[in-house]
Amino acid sequence: LTPSQTRIGDVGEGELLRRLRARIPEVEGALVGVGDDAAVLEIDGPVVVTADGLVEGVHFQREWTPPSLLGRKALSVSLSDVAAMGGTGRYAVVSLSLPPELPVEWVDSLYDGLLERAAEVGVGLVGGNVARSRAAIVIDVTVLGQTVRPLLRSGARPGDLVVVTGTLGTAAEGVTLLQQGARLDEEGALSATGVWTDSSSESVEACLRAQLDPRPPLALARSLAERDLARAGMDLSDGLSSDLAELCRQSGLGARVEARSLPVSPAMASLERARGGEAVLVALHGGEDYELLLAVDPADFGALEELARVWGVTVTAIGEFLEGEPGVRVRDEEGERPLPPAGHDHFRIGEPEGQGE
Amino acid sequence: LTPSQTRIGDVGEGELLRRLRARIPEVEGALVGVGDDAAVLEIDGPVVVTADGLVEGVHFQREWTPPSLLGRKALSVSLSDVAAMGGTGRYAVVSLSLPPELPVEWVDSLYDGLLERAAEVGVGLVGGNVARSRAAIVIDVTVLGQTVRPLLRSGARPGDLVVVTGTLGTAAEGVTLLQQGARLDEEGALSATGVWTDSSSESVEACLRAQLDPRPPLALARSLAERDLARAGMDLSDGLSSDLAELCRQSGLGARVEARSLPVSPAMASLERARGGEAVLVALHGGEDYELLLAVDPADFGALEELARVWGVTVTAIGEFLEGEPGVRVRDEEGERPLPPAGHDHFRIGEPEGQGE
Repeated sequence: LTPSQTRIGDVGEGELLRRLRARIPEVEGALVGVGDDAAVLEIDGPVVVTADGLVEGVHFQREWTPPSLLGRKALSVSLSDVAAMGGTGRYAVVSLSLPPELPVEWVDSLYDGLLERAAEVGVGLVGGNVARSRAAIVIDVTVLGQTVRPLLRSGARPGDLVVVTGTLGTAAEGVTLLQQGARLDEEGALSATGVWTDSSSESVEACLRAQLDPRPPLALARSLAERDLARAGMDLSDGLSSDLAELCRQSGLGARVEARSLPVSPAMASLERARGGEAVLVALHGGEDYELLLAVDPADFGALEELARVWGVTVTAIGEFLEGEPGVRVRDEEGERPLPPAGHDHFRIGEPEGQGE
Repeated sequence: LTPSQTRIGDVGEGELLRRLRARIPEVEGALVGVGDDAAVLEIDGPVVVTADGLVEGVHFQREWTPPSLLGRKALSVSLSDVAAMGGTGRYAVVSLSLPPELPVEWVDSLYDGLLERAAEVGVGLVGGNVARSRAAIVIDVTVLGQTVRPLLRSGARPGDLVVVTGTLGTAAEGVTLLQQGARLDEEGALSATGVWTDSSSESVEACLRAQLDPRPPLALARSLAERDLARAGMDLSDGLSSDLAELCRQSGLGARVEARSLPVSPAMASLERARGGEAVLVALHGGEDYELLLAVDPADFGALEELARVWGVTVTAIGEFLEGEPGVRVRDEEGERPLPPAGHDHFRIGEPEGQGE
């Protein structure tokens, strides 16, 4: 707390709510927005809804997360779920649990990020709730949207390609860098490289950004679902090995991944190489990339590539879904072997607390 | 942890989610329910949405709250907001933050209560999320519903009656009783009277139930809104003095409450009398009754009384909205004076941590 800052405990719940609400712009389609018992919204067709949360000490550390980026990320992770359903996010409801010693200015910055990100993606903030917490900050964001054609996890068929968007392992590398002292500032610019020299700064910045300010391919997701270019899909939040196992389980199939086909993040790979790590392992198991994992009919892959190009996103076929027992195998130059789901499970006692989800 | 119990940290996030999801019944109107990236729902007309949360150590204490009742309450408090909007809750999304040492059986019981309450009120569970928390349990419930005619906080006019449903102060008395060792068991039956003798057991049980298992007047709320029998409304969660001040602020009016008209909870009053407390103060400031606070045209009050009788709810006119500066006054045998909003504000540093909201 600097001398110019005020704790939210000095302001009180009612005043904090009024302060936050005063900054929320009017939302098109909201018959009733923030400030009443509930919001009342116009939505065409079926309603897509999801809730996701970020918990301090589990999904983020306060000292290495600028609040404005945290606000952006809290919205992005819920939007990623809506997109993975082939939907378009339209409205968001934000529940905050905040310790009373937190400076009001911190919450203001969180809202700056939330509102900035909401404006970027055309989502309106229509409700919120603040509750006192004893110690940890918890940010739960519910997003409501609409969908033309829901993209399920259960629709993959044998012979479908396993496809991912973007690159893998960037966000997981970001956590390692944060633990080593690298930092972004409130504007998302690199402010410290930690143990790294300036020559790596571009890679460091890319990985930190992927971790602190993920940008799921929202438009591509919606657009490929509308065009029916994937048979199944989900977002990559826990890590490829865990998420693909889940898609296989829900589709009742197995899958084989070709290690050489993985779109390993170049920024991550260069840093892993420098520290003697294994980039492929980070790509296979690292979480929080918030890319899409899809099951695509080989006959549709060309059309998907073309569509992805329009949206400035890369898509890569990394393997194939297979008839048989659910479960994922990986093939590299040493042969083929089972790929156990080794994405981070926050709950496992004994695992280090970290980030993931 | 008893020898037969398992910690959720031993089970892991994926397994816990599957275990919970397996118990959730199919939901009518849900095109996609639990288990995918997001739910996809059919809702007729405008969508009502609200999120509310219960934080351990702030809104409840683990040692005095049976988890099944907590599950019931978590849903009820969000339903109360939907009802106060004149809406009907249809779907719920539950976000849990749970410490890994918590027994899985505790979470099972929480879900027992949630699902039981959901079935009672015709709400379907369509989504959920579990996150690890470091220490405190946080339960956020988002409810989606529909509404014919939204009941706002801003519609009161001078001359409207200030009306409340049910009785006041019961739930606040429940907190005092819990602090004194009184308890309900998992089934909601009285298991300990604390400092009280058996002769008070009915009153003790009534107050504990109001606190641990509130029953907002959902059907009356929806039905009076449909019939346009209130000009404004909200639910009583922070306490009459705070909530009426908020209704006045949003309607740009003042209000005067007649102390002798207050529907003071008889159960609370008998216990307060026995301990030398002031029942009227508890009725004016005590939170969490989850009753309705309404602004009613005097010409409509008869029809409202009749409708309330149909639903087995009492309604009481306790004062009047007045032209002029927003603010609440109270009149008793000693005259008229301002009634400052003294409901509990969880955030105020210096206030004891307790319950309220």
